[in-house]
Amino acid sequence: MKSKFRQIALLGKYHLNSGSSANPSSRKTLEEIAQFLHTLGCEVILEHDTAAGSGLSGYTVMGIEEIGTSCDLAIVLGGDGTMLGYARQLAPHNVPLIGINQGRLGFITDIPLNEVKNTLTAMLGGGYEEDRRALMRAKVWRDGHCVFNALALNDVVVNRGATSGMLEVRVAIDGRFVANQRADGVIIATPTGSTAYSLSVGGPLLHPSLPAWVMAPIAPHTLSNRPIVLSDTGEVTIDLVAGRDASANFDMQSLASLLIGDRITVKRSNYHATFLHPRGWSYYDTLRQKLHWNEGVA
Amino acid sequence: MKSKFRQIALLGKYHLNSGSSANPSSRKTLEEIAQFLHTLGCEVILEHDTAAGSGLSGYTVMGIEEIGTSCDLAIVLGGDGTMLGYARQLAPHNVPLIGINQGRLGFITDIPLNEVKNTLTAMLGGGYEEDRRALMRAKVWRDGHCVFNALALNDVVVNRGATSGMLEVRVAIDGRFVANQRADGVIIATPTGSTAYSLSVGGPLLHPSLPAWVMAPIAPHTLSNRPIVLSDTGEVTIDLVAGRDASANFDMQSLASLLIGDRITVKRSNYHATFLHPRGWSYYDTLRQKLHWNEGVA
Amino acid sequence: MKSKFRQIALLGKYHLNSGSSANPSSRKTLEEIAQFLHTLGCEVILEHDTAAGSGLSGYTVMGIEEIGTSCDLAIVLGGDGTMLGYARQLAPHNVPLIGINQGRLGFITDIPLNEVKNTLTAMLGGGYEEDRRALMRAKVWRDGHCVFNALALNDVVVNRGATSGMLEVRVAIDGRFVANQRADGVIIATPTGSTAYSLSVGGPLLHPSLPAWVMAPIAPHTLSNRPIVLSDTGEVTIDLVAGRDASANFDMQSLASLLIGDRITVKRSNYHATFLHPRGWSYYDTLRQKLHWNEGVA
Amino acid sequence: MKSKFRQIALLGKYHLNSGSSANPSSRKTLEEIAQFLHTLGCEVILEHDTAAGSGLSGYTVMGIEEIGTSCDLAIVLGGDGTMLGYARQLAPHNVPLIGINQGRLGFITDIPLNEVKNTLTAMLGGGYEEDRRALMRAKVWRDGHCVFNALALNDVVVNRGATSGMLEVRVAIDGRFVANQRADGVIIATPTGSTAYSLSVGGPLLHPSLPAWVMAPIAPHTLSNRPIVLSDTGEVTIDLVAGRDASANFDMQSLASLLIGDRITVKRSNYHATFLHPRGWSYYDTLRQKLHWNEGVA
Repeated sequence: MKSKFRQIALLGKYHLNSGSSANPSSRKTLEEIAQFLHTLGCEVILEHDTAAGSGLSGYTVMGIEEIGTSCDLAIVLGGDGTMLGYARQLAPHNVPLIGINQGRLGFITDIPLNEVKNTLTAMLGGGYEEDRRALMRAKVWRDGHCVFNALALNDVVVNRGATSGMLEVRVAIDGRFVANQRADGVIIATPTGSTAYSLSVGGPLLHPSLPAWVMAPIAPHTLSNRPIVLSDTGEVTIDLVAGRDASANFDMQSLASLLIGDRITVKRSNYHATFLHPRGWSYYDTLRQKLHWNEGVA
Repeated sequence: MKSKFRQIALLGKYHLNSGSSANPSSRKTLEEIAQFLHTLGCEVILEHDTAAGSGLSGYTVMGIEEIGTSCDLAIVLGGDGTMLGYARQLAPHNVPLIGINQGRLGFITDIPLNEVKNTLTAMLGGGYEEDRRALMRAKVWRDGHCVFNALALNDVVVNRGATSGMLEVRVAIDGRFVANQRADGVIIATPTGSTAYSLSVGGPLLHPSLPAWVMAPIAPHTLSNRPIVLSDTGEVTIDLVAGRDASANFDMQSLASLLIGDRITVKRSNYHATFLHPRGWSYYDTLRQKLHWNEGVA
Repeated sequence: MKSKFRQIALLGKYHLNSGSSANPSSRKTLEEIAQFLHTLGCEVILEHDTAAGSGLSGYTVMGIEEIGTSCDLAIVLGGDGTMLGYARQLAPHNVPLIGINQGRLGFITDIPLNEVKNTLTAMLGGGYEEDRRALMRAKVWRDGHCVFNALALNDVVVNRGATSGMLEVRVAIDGRFVANQRADGVIIATPTGSTAYSLSVGGPLLHPSLPAWVMAPIAPHTLSNRPIVLSDTGEVTIDLVAGRDASANFDMQSLASLLIGDRITVKRSNYHATFLHPRGWSYYDTLRQKLHWNEGVA
Repeated sequence: MKSKFRQIALLGKYHLNSGSSANPSSRKTLEEIAQFLHTLGCEVILEHDTAAGSGLSGYTVMGIEEIGTSCDLAIVLGGDGTMLGYARQLAPHNVPLIGINQGRLGFITDIPLNEVKNTLTAMLGGGYEEDRRALMRAKVWRDGHCVFNALALNDVVVNRGATSGMLEVRVAIDGRFVANQRADGVIIATPTGSTAYSLSVGGPLLHPSLPAWVMAPIAPHTLSNRPIVLSDTGEVTIDLVAGRDASANFDMQSLASLLIGDRITVKRSNYHATFLHPRGWSYYDTLRQKLHWNEGVA
């Protein structure tokens, strides 16, 4: 069977220059996948850090930007966090991603390592479901200037410092005042992010096809301050009214320290992340499995 | 100032033939509003039950159907429940509604009685915000036949009998299996209904502009069975798998008894309800007021 | 090894005269346990319905009352629901219970069938943990007369009729007004019941040693109407203020229809249920297992 | 009428050496209360910071310790936070406290300024309700040494750093393993603290008379990780297993930075705080008022 994709990037979980003990993708696994892709007639490109971290050689090596402009497909070996990071970086280039998981399956990394050959053969031949996810463009404004600019695929989180009390933010949409939130913080999550931090604070699940965001307060002072689902066509503004050492976090992977008076704006990005899943994939099947539905009390 | 609306129906809260002790609209209030509309050059039509219940005479009397085909506007005196009932009946005729509230303001009946003249003058002159709300078309199927057919503006609720244990339903969307719910019941709510029963069981608030429904389980056996927000373009099916004396309720105003094996289908209706609000109205202002946000602990 | 218990009753899950398809205890399993107890030198007594339902013969047969006065121990084959029913009936007689579960382990029936011989041998020899659980004495009062009187081990639930709206109850403790609840209903649960229905509506877990009850509203109209944990030394009164077809349920196994004005009183019973668990048993281990803690997202 | 209390300390909200813009007690108000107490035949003692901050003179001035050993009663002018701080400091000396609130009434500061004379007259004459609250003794252990030691009246909170992900703690009681919590943090709250931070994360209300604590996870990763109510007779240990920049907070008023491997122990203190309330005071009345029960949706 012939692959629909010619130039395929292989990306693993590597945190160079860090003392992280997190479980990196093994060189052996990467090598097996690379060789297998080669037998399918694909050109294999190794992501720069992945090549350096694993020591795997004999393949073209590229940085993320170059992968974005040169490759038809990215295959990510890792968990949802790794996938999230690469998906955000590749979104401007419209490169689809496939996630292979070495451990417990994730919400978006859903191919177990032991089924990788059969599954990839079918998917590269065209047997896949396309799953497009909206991104947010978030900016931090201070004294009229944009001091931080980030994409987020999961969520934008404004939260208090660890040792300070509640913060207070003023939230508006398209200039309409929504609410003052006195809380540990507030989360604006995409449907993708609705299964992450937002879920832990009581937010609902949002189907990925919805043009919507959920705003979920974190430990709100006012008990009736419930999560609210908003159209993603508007611009959300969050003004920091009070609170020491507050910060804005984007996918919990980058962050900006905030000062009183700072404004965070959140809009729908022009970019999407596109995940490919095996034929027959269903969002609901993943939900049921990950949330242990139909397994009794919990 | 001249009214944009010529034929205006006046509808109050009257439950004839019932022993209800609920507070009906007073004849005096109806009469004042009717006379005031007359002075604005409008033709006033009294809804049939409202005329009979109040004893008010001297105006043309029509049933709901005739109001639907003849009137430009319906002015409802009552609370959200009264408004809900009339809005559902007028939706097929595309007649907009204005809600005047004698007591505590509601989510959709937001004109206090003591401001009715000034407010109506401005609104009938064209100074209003239009607020369109989606309706659901729900059907109950038994042995392949449709045995119940209803519109709902708030919600479709499937719930257990009062003296029986949990029920079990199987929920699917466009043929895709979503979840088996073992619970007291399950609510499918529109954005309008998201501030009603669904909110009491932990559902999120949905902005009325969203093309979405929330499915919220009632007292689910599985703790991770969280509310999920779905696109309203699909068809939801709920199959009753187990449970005695279960019923399906539509806006908690009409109901069908269910047998094991019955299927409830829920689709977006072709109709909308259109509410008119005073200029400057904001959905968020109503939320904050009704939910006592920014008032401390609760 | 010699058994500390001489007269041991064996009770299974049998619902005679009912069309219930629920999985009854098998004759074969009962027989094996009975014979095994005999080899340990115990006298085996079969509960009346269990004997009739299983067809097992050759053992003394007694009703629950007689078991209560004659036996040292009751071994129950079934799930938590079966155990609950027998424990409530045996509580006045202070007979301890051991629960053997044919399927998924329960909160209180924690001996799997395939380990029954080793486990019983150790337990009957004295190797067990004693786990005492408080019961409630609940009464329904109408016009000054007690019209219903029940014990409950899990909970007392006052709830609305299936086809009616919210009910309203007035709750007081020792004559002190606590709250008016407008809701689907209200649950008063023991620590034992805190893992049952109360948990589904957002109630906390209560350690069994606590002299406390939790009052949890079901789908409360007021969002700040949160579960409250009360001392079990007081008398709770629940007055039905409004609501059609309301009922009071005791362990969801018996019920009384309610009229407006009825009063339900709940006090700590003088009786306890005593469960015996294998040596090393821990309440927290059971919680973690039943609630799937430490298993990821859900 | 004669006062039962002779030596009465007056304590206000003063944060000297801080840039806090928080609303301090006014000299004028303090002076009025001091003079009024004088007319009742009491000796008035001004707390040191209160005297310095307000500039009020002509009264004996004492530090907290001396107040503890010399005074019969402490009258606190401020909100719940101010009261909390003083109550914790006076608990070892068993001095009862009365709270006077200049703004919105609190859970424990329940005498409005405009009723202060009538209310104090009655209370000092013996017309009061005594309300004893349990305190926690919390310690932080590192390498076998106690590195921090604090009393808490509300809660002990272990939480993650602002810019880090979840932490993981291992919780045990009297050596029995309860749960691993992967979350933003975990709260151990007294009944007094059950209306504070714990409530915001979904914890239940605990009646002050209960010998119990609630353990409530903050944004737990596992959805079934629900709040659990524990006996306050045991020793809770919380071991920090993973997480950067974690800290332990005591009443959110003092804090200790934590390292991986640190252990926090929480036991019931030998001390109590005793609040005096006007005759007829009811905990439930305060709850209803503060939580806006019986006021509609929220």
